[in-house]
Amino acid sequence: MQKIGKQTIKFDNPPTISQTACIVGPKESDGPLAKYFDQCLEDEFWGEDSWEKAESKIIKETVNTLISKSGIPSDKIDYCFAGDLLNQCISSSFGLRELNIPFFGIFGACSTFVEGMSLASVFVESGIEHAICASSSHFCSAEKQFRFPLELGNQRTPTAQWTVTGAGAAIISKSGTGPFITHITPGKIVDMGIKDANNMGAAMAPAAFDTLMTHFKDTGRKPSYYDAIITGDLGYIGKEILIDLMLADGYNIKSNYNDCGVMIFDKEKQDTHAGGSGCGCCGSVFSGYLFKQLKAKKLKRILLIATGALTNSTSNQQGESIPGIAHAISIEL
Amino acid sequence: MQKIGKQTIKFDNPPTISQTACIVGPKESDGPLAKYFDQCLEDEFWGEDSWEKAESKIIKETVNTLISKSGIPSDKIDYCFAGDLLNQCISSSFGLRELNIPFFGIFGACSTFVEGMSLASVFVESGIEHAICASSSHFCSAEKQFRFPLELGNQRTPTAQWTVTGAGAAIISKSGTGPFITHITPGKIVDMGIKDANNMGAAMAPAAFDTLMTHFKDTGRKPSYYDAIITGDLGYIGKEILIDLMLADGYNIKSNYNDCGVMIFDKEKQDTHAGGSGCGCCGSVFSGYLFKQLKAKKLKRILLIATGALTNSTSNQQGESIPGIAHAISIEL
Repeated sequence: MQKIGKQTIKFDNPPTISQTACIVGPKESDGPLAKYFDQCLEDEFWGEDSWEKAESKIIKETVNTLISKSGIPSDKIDYCFAGDLLNQCISSSFGLRELNIPFFGIFGACSTFVEGMSLASVFVESGIEHAICASSSHFCSAEKQFRFPLELGNQRTPTAQWTVTGAGAAIISKSGTGPFITHITPGKIVDMGIKDANNMGAAMAPAAFDTLMTHFKDTGRKPSYYDAIITGDLGYIGKEILIDLMLADGYNIKSNYNDCGVMIFDKEKQDTHAGGSGCGCCGSVFSGYLFKQLKAKKLKRILLIATGALTNSTSNQQGESIPGIAHAISIEL
Repeated sequence: MQKIGKQTIKFDNPPTISQTACIVGPKESDGPLAKYFDQCLEDEFWGEDSWEKAESKIIKETVNTLISKSGIPSDKIDYCFAGDLLNQCISSSFGLRELNIPFFGIFGACSTFVEGMSLASVFVESGIEHAICASSSHFCSAEKQFRFPLELGNQRTPTAQWTVTGAGAAIISKSGTGPFITHITPGKIVDMGIKDANNMGAAMAPAAFDTLMTHFKDTGRKPSYYDAIITGDLGYIGKEILIDLMLADGYNIKSNYNDCGVMIFDKEKQDTHAGGSGCGCCGSVFSGYLFKQLKAKKLKRILLIATGALTNSTSNQQGESIPGIAHAISIEL
């Protein structure tokens, strides 16, 4: 691998995404991408007695499904990179504690899935055979932890995003038939002073802008190089902000740009306000829909940019703004 | 790099630890390692109006000190790996938001510092010039978040460890005069069913045992190969458990083994019960004391094994056990 430009790594022997898997909750199962997911749950508990345990079960079974679909024996998988939104990332550590694969805990808020893919790619390109990345989120555990108890029946503001219940996971391998991860552009923390915890799209869009512009400058590519540029998860409001920011700098991404938080729910029929969010959103949209589009050659080159809001409820109560981050990877056939 | 054995990576061109830095709180400044730290604070707030903001300032100024001591311009540092114990790792993301270096958030509880060194080493050996790793913890913010408000004046149980107020940071570089990171052995999650949140040493010792045994088997080395085997942070109780577990498997580590949580406080004069803990404990003991011993050639080969308890207060209230993890790195001249 080699570093090109300011922040991008170009792989000499691009790692393959061998297989993906995803499991989603009931609301996601009513959305437009339902048919692409491996498993659609009928309720948010999945037989567990807490939302946290349900989320752990979702990431656990997603990774089990992944390994089973891949046909790769689990003792041939060298390392696992995983994280989630819960305090101290307990969904991943409890869900994957029986996995018996060396584990790197990661936290990038909703950017975690692509952070994991980036780290796994570097390990694989540097000599490792197989690595797993995984991330999860759960609407109920996230609302309870970051906002209000669901039992309170609070109204959500129009700019609020709906945390996806679900998990995505992928195996990155040294050899295979693609799709290949050709570049990664890990992002910097960007804080433009947004303080509204119900407007994460606005808080994260400047980070997506920064990483996207850096990626284009570092690689010399233009937006039109990609069949699709996909952020995860700016939602409707962040998506519009990113389009405007890019346009102001002379890049028109309107024709080939979409967002996982926009794609996963139906705007008219499902009332999610500003769209989906959460580590499980980008994870499941990529692992379910995008990966299958790549395998079917309906998409040949995509830029996946996962965005995260690096905040918690304490910092918000202390009047702090919300720093954002965005990590990008090029995936090509 | 190449994978050897089950979990270990051996570097063909071992990365150098170019420089380290650490800042610690007032209790740590009264301990036996005080003279090795870059800065000793007089109070837990350091001019801020919350413990969380104080912790952010500690990691921020530690990284600023590191860059300044290293003489490496910050725009030559490619990536940063950092994490802490606060919910959603806000100490790192707020503390390092102005750093302007691409950022990977990591979470391994008290194992975070060595997790960061491991990831940074892989990036550097694979072609990157310089990477930073950093971690922090703060006694007051940790007690507030994981246990009880300090104002309550709760008694601590004899098995409880004292979270270190402090941060450690290191620059890992492609070329230099050492000390070199020659191997990493990332650990698996190990859960032996310990449920006492006031006995983290017992929860983490089995993970340290698993990683340590794996490291010896993977490398063919024996405990006597190392001048020092240092865990961070099992404390007094976890240290004794690890010695016993190793002895039962035929490895006597008693003569060259110590623990950062044991080393940082004075057992007689400072009442910390089971010793120190926290991401800042291993971080500051390595960055302060151990690195200087290596540079002075008083230690030539050490195995640093940071241990983490992957738990939170919710999982504990839900009756869950405490999974542990331990990551090891060989550091040699």
